[in-house]
Amino acid sequence: MTRFASALGIAQDIRSGKRSAASVMQSVLATINQHDAAIHSVTHLFAQQAMEQAQAVDALLARNKPLPPLAGVPFGVKDLFDIQGHVTTAGSIVLRNTPPATQDAAIVARLRAAGAIAVATLNMDEFAYGFATDNAHYGITRNPHDTSRMAGGSSGGSAAAVAAGFLPLTLGTDTNGSIRVPASLCGVWGLKPTFGRLPREGAYPFSASLDVVGHFAGTLDDLMAAFYIMAGTPAEPEPQTVRAACLGGWFAQNLSPALAAAIGRVCQHLGLSGSVELPQTPTARAASFLITAAEGGTLHLPRLRAAAEEYDPATRDRLLAGAMLPSSTYVQAQRFRRWFRQQVHAVFEQVDVLVAPAVMCEAPRLDDPTVMVDGKPASARANLGLYTQPITLPGLPVLCLPLRNTGTLPLGLQLVAAPGREAALFSLARKLEQAGLAGRCPLEAQQAA
Amino acid sequence: MTRFASALGIAQDIRSGKRSAASVMQSVLATINQHDAAIHSVTHLFAQQAMEQAQAVDALLARNKPLPPLAGVPFGVKDLFDIQGHVTTAGSIVLRNTPPATQDAAIVARLRAAGAIAVATLNMDEFAYGFATDNAHYGITRNPHDTSRMAGGSSGGSAAAVAAGFLPLTLGTDTNGSIRVPASLCGVWGLKPTFGRLPREGAYPFSASLDVVGHFAGTLDDLMAAFYIMAGTPAEPEPQTVRAACLGGWFAQNLSPALAAAIGRVCQHLGLSGSVELPQTPTARAASFLITAAEGGTLHLPRLRAAAEEYDPATRDRLLAGAMLPSSTYVQAQRFRRWFRQQVHAVFEQVDVLVAPAVMCEAPRLDDPTVMVDGKPASARANLGLYTQPITLPGLPVLCLPLRNTGTLPLGLQLVAAPGREAALFSLARKLEQAGLAGRCPLEAQQAA
Repeated sequence: MTRFASALGIAQDIRSGKRSAASVMQSVLATINQHDAAIHSVTHLFAQQAMEQAQAVDALLARNKPLPPLAGVPFGVKDLFDIQGHVTTAGSIVLRNTPPATQDAAIVARLRAAGAIAVATLNMDEFAYGFATDNAHYGITRNPHDTSRMAGGSSGGSAAAVAAGFLPLTLGTDTNGSIRVPASLCGVWGLKPTFGRLPREGAYPFSASLDVVGHFAGTLDDLMAAFYIMAGTPAEPEPQTVRAACLGGWFAQNLSPALAAAIGRVCQHLGLSGSVELPQTPTARAASFLITAAEGGTLHLPRLRAAAEEYDPATRDRLLAGAMLPSSTYVQAQRFRRWFRQQVHAVFEQVDVLVAPAVMCEAPRLDDPTVMVDGKPASARANLGLYTQPITLPGLPVLCLPLRNTGTLPLGLQLVAAPGREAALFSLARKLEQAGLAGRCPLEAQQAA
Repeated sequence: MTRFASALGIAQDIRSGKRSAASVMQSVLATINQHDAAIHSVTHLFAQQAMEQAQAVDALLARNKPLPPLAGVPFGVKDLFDIQGHVTTAGSIVLRNTPPATQDAAIVARLRAAGAIAVATLNMDEFAYGFATDNAHYGITRNPHDTSRMAGGSSGGSAAAVAAGFLPLTLGTDTNGSIRVPASLCGVWGLKPTFGRLPREGAYPFSASLDVVGHFAGTLDDLMAAFYIMAGTPAEPEPQTVRAACLGGWFAQNLSPALAAAIGRVCQHLGLSGSVELPQTPTARAASFLITAAEGGTLHLPRLRAAAEEYDPATRDRLLAGAMLPSSTYVQAQRFRRWFRQQVHAVFEQVDVLVAPAVMCEAPRLDDPTVMVDGKPASARANLGLYTQPITLPGLPVLCLPLRNTGTLPLGLQLVAAPGREAALFSLARKLEQAGLAGRCPLEAQQAA
């Protein structure tokens, strides 16, 4: 069984000759073919290519050639990363007649150079605009923990494929929470690195001043290994002591009882009392939302003029509205952003890592897509980003970790650091993992396996 | 007579005891009181304060104390720089009830620390939005070379005060050409430094991503000395060789015959043949214009909502229109700007200084405020920035030098360098000055003096 095996475990098994890369790949493809109909995470399978690449790894090994660190490790990409020879559709039919990509996206190329094998493109909200992975053209991705529930979005296929044990590693993008929200709802590890730290070349853009590429993994070690490979830098030493603080105010409101209890256990374990507040958090959320709308709208305006009817209606209307926002709204949002960034940086003079919820509750039901906000049910699509959007604005790195829940559905926690301080996130996450407070949320299927 | 004396000459005279600071100041105040009625460059005179400060310089000297480099040198500021204890009105009545400034603007403070004495605030287009210094509240500043002609704007009072010999040094701001246009029309030296090189604190803003503070002087040496004092850094060595090239295309069209001839003489002297073109110059001009409108509109929107009727109608309508531009227009302009900056930087791999006209002709008449564009008369206000606006966009340093004209009215030339390379501008400007091709345009009055 490779299902739920870690990327580093697979690489080790192949390197040691315990399993062939071809048998790993065969098993991965079989699992996806058998189980993805219920989840719908995959939009395209590179089955033949992936098998050939796996056989090439085995051939290298047979000739006693040294294998790169991720040799034979299968991975998937959100359907907006360029894969050479494949048309990048970004979850839309608008781009279906564009030419195939002439080269891999930068981080795809780095993973491939490390021996990993691209197996599939994964479902997303059209043009990454949403938290639902409910795509008018390619269908809904369902939560592997309960297929009657949302997987979250926009990188929902990527989170679900890891949660379902189809792939140990998948790529996503995060503008307002598109890695963190589905990681939280699907119970896997997700990383939104510092703005600008990973190269975005070859990832279909959404909001130029906010987009970040990142990834999902089933284990913290996989998440870290893939991060440094994609960054093209050696692993950094983890700091021995990490000053942590809980985010209060906005981030302490609207929590479900299970989440409040889980965060309470984390705070207790870390000995955190009291909390830190960010100023004007609702404005930070609004600014993030408005900048996204304006930049996304501007990007799509020429295509909307030519082919608005081809867009998913939910995407189209928001992009058009974004393009028509007054410039004063956008300029003011960017002004606020500079101010907010300064405030946040001042907080990081006292603290290394801020602890905050990722999403306010467990995954909402698809037939009742609401969450509780201020005591009333509110649209899940519009509110799943409640805690991720404000943190988007200053470009901080955020690790979303799967919290141990006393219930059966996943809950997610954001660990937030100053720019470039991913190593502090990894250090604190490991502490929580070792204490049994964080870890991939088990699936029924996994328990059976 | 101090009229037309240089700042460094005045400082030297005072230091050597040839003249007292008080007598210099008395003479400056007398000249302004006698001659400014015809020019209308001054909006407020700090007569008593300035005399007291001059006497303090004399007292220092009497006690054999060392004098700072600009001790006793009178200077003026565009009416948007904070002067401690004075209400900064930015050429408007909108701000008249705001509290007085609690400290000097940063570059004012640096000049004062160097011993210079603030004598006057100087007229401008309301909120720096214009090329005319035709102010509905404070009147029109006239060109000292011909009072029936425009002084240019928005820093028109600052340029006119130097041209008229009232002050050897004045401060201005340049967003789209507000230093370069009046320097050109008034025949004085002007510097728009690299974006961000001089501190803007205490200068009333207009367009956050474009505003630059700078200055006017009657001699190149004064311009340089004041620049390094305001930058707070030692004077940089001037490069021995400067690779220059003329800007062609957009910048070679619409020149008046006198200007074409003057630029021809410069090119001949420098041995320049052929020319360099910037790509998509009209779009660069449009982007600069649109960014200004959107950022200026955003800045003023709250005040416009409260007191639109207090604005100069010409300013008000443009600010309102700017605030209502669609965000997609602004975002696209900023996207273009990043692209354009890369193109321009590539040009500077081959060239150190680009040579371009500042304004297409001599100062237009106030009773016929037109310039010739594409063979037809067009609004001067709307077109005086034809050559300055595109160069604004990438934040390059520009020295505007007074060209020797065979006629009696001034003409201006832009020397443009890569960011931070002001020293290359000074080097080339000195070469042209030494060759008799550049220098403050003489006034009738000056010739008589």
